[in-house]
Amino acid sequence: MQLIIGNKNYSSWSLRGWLMLKGFDLAFDEIRLPLFTDTFAQEIGRYTDTKKVPVLIDGDIRVWDSLAICEYINEAYLKGAGWPSDIAERSLARAISCEMHSGFVDLRHEMPMNCRAKGEVNASDKALADIQRINQIWTDLRTRYSEQGPWLFGQFSIADVVYAPVALRFASYGPTISEQASAYVQTILGHPAIQEWIAAAKVELEVIPEEEVLTEK
Amino acid sequence: MQLIIGNKNYSSWSLRGWLMLKGFDLAFDEIRLPLFTDTFAQEIGRYTDTKKVPVLIDGDIRVWDSLAICEYINEAYLKGAGWPSDIAERSLARAISCEMHSGFVDLRHEMPMNCRAKGEVNASDKALADIQRINQIWTDLRTRYSEQGPWLFGQFSIADVVYAPVALRFASYGPTISEQASAYVQTILGHPAIQEWIAAAKVELEVIPEEEVLTEK
Repeated sequence: MQLIIGNKNYSSWSLRGWLMLKGFDLAFDEIRLPLFTDTFAQEIGRYTDTKKVPVLIDGDIRVWDSLAICEYINEAYLKGAGWPSDIAERSLARAISCEMHSGFVDLRHEMPMNCRAKGEVNASDKALADIQRINQIWTDLRTRYSEQGPWLFGQFSIADVVYAPVALRFASYGPTISEQASAYVQTILGHPAIQEWIAAAKVELEVIPEEEVLTEK
Repeated sequence: MQLIIGNKNYSSWSLRGWLMLKGFDLAFDEIRLPLFTDTFAQEIGRYTDTKKVPVLIDGDIRVWDSLAICEYINEAYLKGAGWPSDIAERSLARAISCEMHSGFVDLRHEMPMNCRAKGEVNASDKALADIQRINQIWTDLRTRYSEQGPWLFGQFSIADVVYAPVALRFASYGPTISEQASAYVQTILGHPAIQEWIAAAKVELEVIPEEEVLTEK
């Protein structure tokens, strides 16, 4: 398989596709196309009509969109083990994952993923409401599944893949969240694949000014 | 089952959940909470922490988010028949559905679903790019699957549920699209469930000024 991604420092959607493969121990070749460069503009059209990363290429199959990549990998390689096995838990996992996929626009805009950033931003009321909602989701799940393991549903699942970039945003900007939610951020940060991703992000040379939003460092 | 929805005239995400159930002939009770009303504010919290419609209640299971509802119904009631049966086609169907779920923000903002509206709006370049991308998706699929039936993948699927509100937007605002894409809009409009939805929308009394965007009528 091949996975086309953007900058590791900034591309939160790329991280999802990448973590889905790494987190479930699947081998793939990575093709990095730095965003907003001539290289990106020239190359991305070879892989996808959407002009967006990530894109997964598996033989004749090309899947774009990070959530669709997760569902494809779940079916093609994991026999469904990417989601919780109980249908009630699985429907809840999909609900929070789809909620993330379509929402939290203000949080994503005001607190862009930026693995190198460490400091504060002035968040709007809307972004604070997004943070509060995510804090509620994480706290509820980590309370409910605390004995099954450290991930949202105990065991590592697609829900963790979907929310991993948010954990990195929180690690950068430090919004106020619960003790359980803070512990979950640490769980994400401690994943070997996440450590590998962050290390690679920190040595990337590209800087995207629009994504550098710290008010103080 | 119960489905909590907003205004039929305006709530595109509600239409998806509703069409998923109606389109696959599943029985349910509908609870309509008009958006931006005291009723909505007082009642929605009883059904979901997200404060958003639609929400599906099936016994002890509560699923929010229209795409998660589609996936739940597909697993719980359709034995997977909600998506194309071939994994390559299914991954493509999920890719375009997830692309819709997370994207086309400018189109959705500038051309809100409004079943009663018929006229033009001044679309931005970004909204026009969204329209062009959807036109490409629909035209490609309707060309490829023309002999299998009139829906995106021949037979009616979740991809049609996901894109149905866009077809209603196009019916209202009339952007320039291909012959195949125009025919697909007519296919959506001709679905008995869509006709039922539109008829109900037209007799709703609520008006949401922010969603009334016609430049001329």
